Amino acid sequence: MTRLWNAPADFADEMIDGFVAANGRYVRRVTGGVVRSAGAPEGQVALVVGGGSGHYPAFGGLVGRGLAHGAAMGNLFASPSAQQVTSVATTAQRGGGVLLSYGNYAGDVLNFDAAQERLRAAGIPCESVPVTDDVSSAPADERHKRRGIAGDLTVFRTAGAAAEAGYPLAEVARVARLANERTRSFGVAFTGCTLPGADEPLFEVAEGRMAVGLGIHGEPGIGEEDVPTADELAETLVARLLDELPDGVAAAEDARAIPILNGLGSLKYEEMFVVYRRIAQLLEAAGVEIVDPHVGEYCTSFDMAGTSLTLFWLDDELAELWETPVDAPAYRRGSDVPAATTADAAEAAAEDEAIAPSDDASRETARIVVDAVAVIAATVDAHVDELGRMDAIAGDGDHGIGMQRGSHAAAEAARAAAEAGAGAATTLLRAADAWSDRAGGTSGALWGVILSSVADRIGDSGRPDAPAVARGTADAAAGVMAYGKAEPGDKTLVDALVPFAEELGRAVAAGASLADAWRTASGAATEAAAATADLLPRMGRARPHAEKSLGTPDPGAHSLALITAGVADVLAAATEGN
Amino acid sequence: MTRLWNAPADFADEMIDGFVAANGRYVRRVTGGVVRSAGAPEGQVALVVGGGSGHYPAFGGLVGRGLAHGAAMGNLFASPSAQQVTSVATTAQRGGGVLLSYGNYAGDVLNFDAAQERLRAAGIPCESVPVTDDVSSAPADERHKRRGIAGDLTVFRTAGAAAEAGYPLAEVARVARLANERTRSFGVAFTGCTLPGADEPLFEVAEGRMAVGLGIHGEPGIGEEDVPTADELAETLVARLLDELPDGVAAAEDARAIPILNGLGSLKYEEMFVVYRRIAQLLEAAGVEIVDPHVGEYCTSFDMAGTSLTLFWLDDELAELWETPVDAPAYRRGSDVPAATTADAAEAAAEDEAIAPSDDASRETARIVVDAVAVIAATVDAHVDELGRMDAIAGDGDHGIGMQRGSHAAAEAARAAAEAGAGAATTLLRAADAWSDRAGGTSGALWGVILSSVADRIGDSGRPDAPAVARGTADAAAGVMAYGKAEPGDKTLVDALVPFAEELGRAVAAGASLADAWRTASGAATEAAAATADLLPRMGRARPHAEKSLGTPDPGAHSLALITAGVADVLAAATEGN
Repeated sequence: MTRLWNAPADFADEMIDGFVAANGRYVRRVTGGVVRSAGAPEGQVALVVGGGSGHYPAFGGLVGRGLAHGAAMGNLFASPSAQQVTSVATTAQRGGGVLLSYGNYAGDVLNFDAAQERLRAAGIPCESVPVTDDVSSAPADERHKRRGIAGDLTVFRTAGAAAEAGYPLAEVARVARLANERTRSFGVAFTGCTLPGADEPLFEVAEGRMAVGLGIHGEPGIGEEDVPTADELAETLVARLLDELPDGVAAAEDARAIPILNGLGSLKYEEMFVVYRRIAQLLEAAGVEIVDPHVGEYCTSFDMAGTSLTLFWLDDELAELWETPVDAPAYRRGSDVPAATTADAAEAAAEDEAIAPSDDASRETARIVVDAVAVIAATVDAHVDELGRMDAIAGDGDHGIGMQRGSHAAAEAARAAAEAGAGAATTLLRAADAWSDRAGGTSGALWGVILSSVADRIGDSGRPDAPAVARGTADAAAGVMAYGKAEPGDKTLVDALVPFAEELGRAVAAGASLADAWRTASGAATEAAAATADLLPRMGRARPHAEKSLGTPDPGAHSLALITAGVADVLAAATEGN
Repeated sequence: MTRLWNAPADFADEMIDGFVAANGRYVRRVTGGVVRSAGAPEGQVALVVGGGSGHYPAFGGLVGRGLAHGAAMGNLFASPSAQQVTSVATTAQRGGGVLLSYGNYAGDVLNFDAAQERLRAAGIPCESVPVTDDVSSAPADERHKRRGIAGDLTVFRTAGAAAEAGYPLAEVARVARLANERTRSFGVAFTGCTLPGADEPLFEVAEGRMAVGLGIHGEPGIGEEDVPTADELAETLVARLLDELPDGVAAAEDARAIPILNGLGSLKYEEMFVVYRRIAQLLEAAGVEIVDPHVGEYCTSFDMAGTSLTLFWLDDELAELWETPVDAPAYRRGSDVPAATTADAAEAAAEDEAIAPSDDASRETARIVVDAVAVIAATVDAHVDELGRMDAIAGDGDHGIGMQRGSHAAAEAARAAAEAGAGAATTLLRAADAWSDRAGGTSGALWGVILSSVADRIGDSGRPDAPAVARGTADAAAGVMAYGKAEPGDKTLVDALVPFAEELGRAVAAGASLADAWRTASGAATEAAAATADLLPRMGRARPHAEKSLGTPDPGAHSLALITAGVADVLAAATEGN
């Protein structure tokens, strides 16, 4: 929903004021919208675009060299008036005539047509090209009824490049019509936007459902279905667009196209990249030569959640125009980008390190290590949501996911090492490296330290005794404190690790078996983890936010306690087996 | 919330694949992240940035000439591992050493520091500059504890420009530290994001409330308050940042700064422009010279609703580095932007047209016109939500707002014209022009036609008789059908206007007074508007969407019925008064 405004009725005006204040190097305000602040050469055709506000960067963000000369900016989702269009065009024109281009909506057609009449009456040559890229808004044999969505960009961009190249008005209009003929878009939506001051969204789609072909102002679509996976959505979008090739494109496999994956507002870049990954695969599989892909926000609808795919089918002329320099507030291309060279620094593939020699006793222990790390991964799996929730309260919510990735990588690496004949130390060290590499984040680095500290003490020969494990655990506690610059009481996993190591050392020194000592130490860790609820958070967390972080055990300490309890079971089972 | 993924655990990997597929002209994938696909000159310092994924364009979108040489891309909201950072830096380095720069979070510090050790051990000179711009995350005397948010951009950009300019490693690091010293940010949030596959958002802020100083992963802020107006938010942000000038900036009025208003994800461009409008006013009032403002998305948190203001206080060196060419997937500046010239086509201010001559009788009628248009505006005000809702079902939801703007502009224009001595026709014509100019959209254009058609028939002399008004109304119906290319049954205001005009003509011909005839005609319009509920929508609306548009009267017809009823009251009152 829209959250920030002053008076809703002033929103569009104040928005344009702010846009111009932020982009004075590109645009200046005139009655009805904006024109280029740097002007344009005498005699150049002026491209004037426009439409309702609420679609940024359409339309003001597309005014600049190599793109539009002016934009008529209407109220929110409302066509600019004929007076506005006329005013902008009259100011923008440089004696070469005016091309009006805009999305094909009833209100825009009315007002731009009226403006065209007024401009012609005033002696200014004028042509108009409404954009009709949305395939879901009318059948192929009624293309003139289709709406314009993100395909605006291809028409404006090539027409703007043609104007910049000095084409006369009739030729600029021809390029715009050709680009429109060769542009097709298809979109989906999950929620509508809520306009400033409105109580309700423009439209709603049920949770878990997706509207197919729905327009950018909530105009009717062609259906509704369950939210698909990212790959399934890519398949839907590509299939529909490959199903309707424009005139002049005989077959997809002989053609080249620019894909534009446009976000409507709150469907974000990361999701679109996941979808685009599959789109690229599908287009390549269909034999389409992909040119200059675009993934981003080119025509939005406030914070509507939705996306559309546009395919712009190039011919030689359009391809050449596309690559010319362009410099607008929201659309830029450097003029002197060096061509990509073949990368000269080939990556050195990590060599498979040789497995260190080991004896039978250590290889037997390695199997216990494999079991222990597998139990760690299973323990994390069983508690992943709980850990994530705890971290969402105190931190950034990634603890559960990071622990899961790290522990699974560790389990796999341990299994592979043991199968390859590694002893206990090497097996555990491989697990440590895999954990820190795959998990990333703080916890990944710290768990790498913990496992490798223990590994260093147990060796690859003989059966490690309980004091060796206890020493390794003490090293782990010291290592984590040094590496993480944390102390007990800082509300990190140190709060559980230190009591665990101390209790393990004490019990082992008192003569307990490793399995028994470990069980006792794990109890101490569990108690300590629960006690972190009484501590204030530190380490990367500046201050308590509304006291929410009080009363919740730290996820790092909590996961350590859970894991030591799981490992205690493995050790007990291993002891029983002997 | 995040809606599109395949398996949540694969999200980050697939996201990077898609990002690279879309941006092959800029980046190529390596273990741990991306590096420039075009390489960089031998001996150049390599700037390697990074952090968790989920903040696009940070960090991969900032790899390119004039910016970073590589980005280590961690899992969602998780630091990249030391191995990832080392891998990216080793591939990106060109013999001139490596500068590591990243946001100051515990996990990132751990992993980047470990990578620095490994790089140095491998003989690659390496320096590190964590970014600490978020003023809400620690007090000024503990700046080293502060988090990095959108201020990443200023540090990366100037360091990247310094590397491009051939500065040696120590100097690139000096520039980065200087930029960090001179960068301050302050942010607010309204909602948290929901990670792929998660059931709940990372954090929640109560409806109508705003968290102040909250971190981009939901880290603790410093308070919570009611959602302010756009202007009030601007005041909060600017006041806090002017309160803490960096060393080297003695006073705001002697300084120049780049403002960066960053959107976190679903707070959109239009809202930010409204806020920026006031920020620019406040900075100017404080005497700050504003340089190259940025309003957009530079460091996001998926679709979190929030924004932050960064001020980057320039000195001569930083200002010069800032203006160099840059060309990355998500951050570009053309190298040959012509300086803005003084606009040569000065706008012709619309001259105050002279008021046409009129007589006393017509000026008296003009007062009735003023009353009628005022009642129209009041009628629209009273029904604005209802009209918006009806249009949200069938169209784009702008009908209520457009009608409100148009009718108020018309009422004001009518009042001004009558006060200036205009007769009835001129008064109504001014109202017509103001309506279509200010309302925009379809309805604005059509109401302009309606009012001007009636105006043309009533003249500026004498008291208009009922047949003149009836003829004007018939003209209006014909004009709207011609202009809007709509016919009765198309579910537009024509469906109410045509019966209204016909009934008015019939009643007047039968000898009724204008007031009585108008009342009868208005009843016919009301009946016809209600009947539009049984019609299918047409005119710019392709097909019914889930049948939602059935059963709802068309807002255009409905508002015409309401307005004619309001005017009937004015006419009745005027008759009584005589």
